[in-house]
Amino acid sequence: MNSKGVFITFEGPEGAGKTTVISAIYDRLKNQGKKVLLTREPGGIKISEDIRGIILDNENTEMDAKTEALLYAAARRQHLVEKVIPALAQGYIVLCDRFIDSSLAYQGYARGIGIDEILEINKFAIGEAMPDVTVFFDIRPEEGLARVLNNDQREQNRLDKEDLSFHHKVYEGYQQVIQRYCDRIVVTDASLKQDEVAENVYKIIASRIM
Amino acid sequence: MNSKGVFITFEGPEGAGKTTVISAIYDRLKNQGKKVLLTREPGGIKISEDIRGIILDNENTEMDAKTEALLYAAARRQHLVEKVIPALAQGYIVLCDRFIDSSLAYQGYARGIGIDEILEINKFAIGEAMPDVTVFFDIRPEEGLARVLNNDQREQNRLDKEDLSFHHKVYEGYQQVIQRYCDRIVVTDASLKQDEVAENVYKIIASRIM
Repeated sequence: MNSKGVFITFEGPEGAGKTTVISAIYDRLKNQGKKVLLTREPGGIKISEDIRGIILDNENTEMDAKTEALLYAAARRQHLVEKVIPALAQGYIVLCDRFIDSSLAYQGYARGIGIDEILEINKFAIGEAMPDVTVFFDIRPEEGLARVLNNDQREQNRLDKEDLSFHHKVYEGYQQVIQRYCDRIVVTDASLKQDEVAENVYKIIASRIM
Repeated sequence: MNSKGVFITFEGPEGAGKTTVISAIYDRLKNQGKKVLLTREPGGIKISEDIRGIILDNENTEMDAKTEALLYAAARRQHLVEKVIPALAQGYIVLCDRFIDSSLAYQGYARGIGIDEILEINKFAIGEAMPDVTVFFDIRPEEGLARVLNNDQREQNRLDKEDLSFHHKVYEGYQQVIQRYCDRIVVTDASLKQDEVAENVYKIIASRIM
């Protein structure tokens, strides 16, 4: 499928420090003259942004878990078709902050819908476009949440307001997903200092693209 | 599943006259003192209305067929959970203008995604809540479209603007769906005069609820 480019995704609990680290990796690859695209769902795709607006709307307290899962799959599909697949076809290294594994852990496991059920609608959404490699930022939910709460610049959304037990379930869900896709997912210790995490993640990626 | 109420859905091409006829049926049942709910997706459910706004937005010309299908499934789920299932639990006769078969015919067949594929994501969305009976308003696409175009009061949306060949495919898709669910779907001739159609549809429904 990703015959020319390389599709790399990043996963982990809230506050794992993904965004900062991925940005550093992006700069490093860019400075090496690589064709690299940094994105995250909804990724500036109007339709996906519109969908995300519904998911994160604090007024939508009646949102059913399956509705939420279908909306994530829809936003994922459009972002993939409009942005990721064209970039891969042009030979880009695509760095994507969160992808299918987030849905498997959050909706599939933590919301209790079932990992297999979520996998099914997401396979409908993404077809053969599975990531070539996925980096999991491993951090305990307590530590991740503490970082989120201490970050004044980050506006809290409907998901940040879930209680700690939900985030524990997300973490357990990720463990199951990692086991299922042990060939694709590489775990990195995200409790280290940020420049150490960035260096470790860079090495994981470099081994796949050089 | 629908242990107390009766779940009746109505299907057919654009301009088949469903809305007018269903409204007449609703009044008739209501006058008999029956507990009856008339609805259609998104049915005044805020989340589903928001989703429908994205689907029908004339600006969203980049909408991928699978994205559209997932959005319809999401809107269906929320409408079902918030409105239809509670009414059925209270013993209502629920009359719903369009439901799963529309997605099978429009997205599954006419858009070429595949009826089985669309069935899968819709089964995720609706679970066991299949209609007890479905009335198909049978009218040739040309005749239906001519009615739509002659109706000044109806604002045309993104789907009305599809060309005739698309609506022919929708019709063919419905034929396959009718064959697949011949125990559930009853076909009525929608090219007759409106009061005749209403009378025929009433008889179909009456035989199931009396």
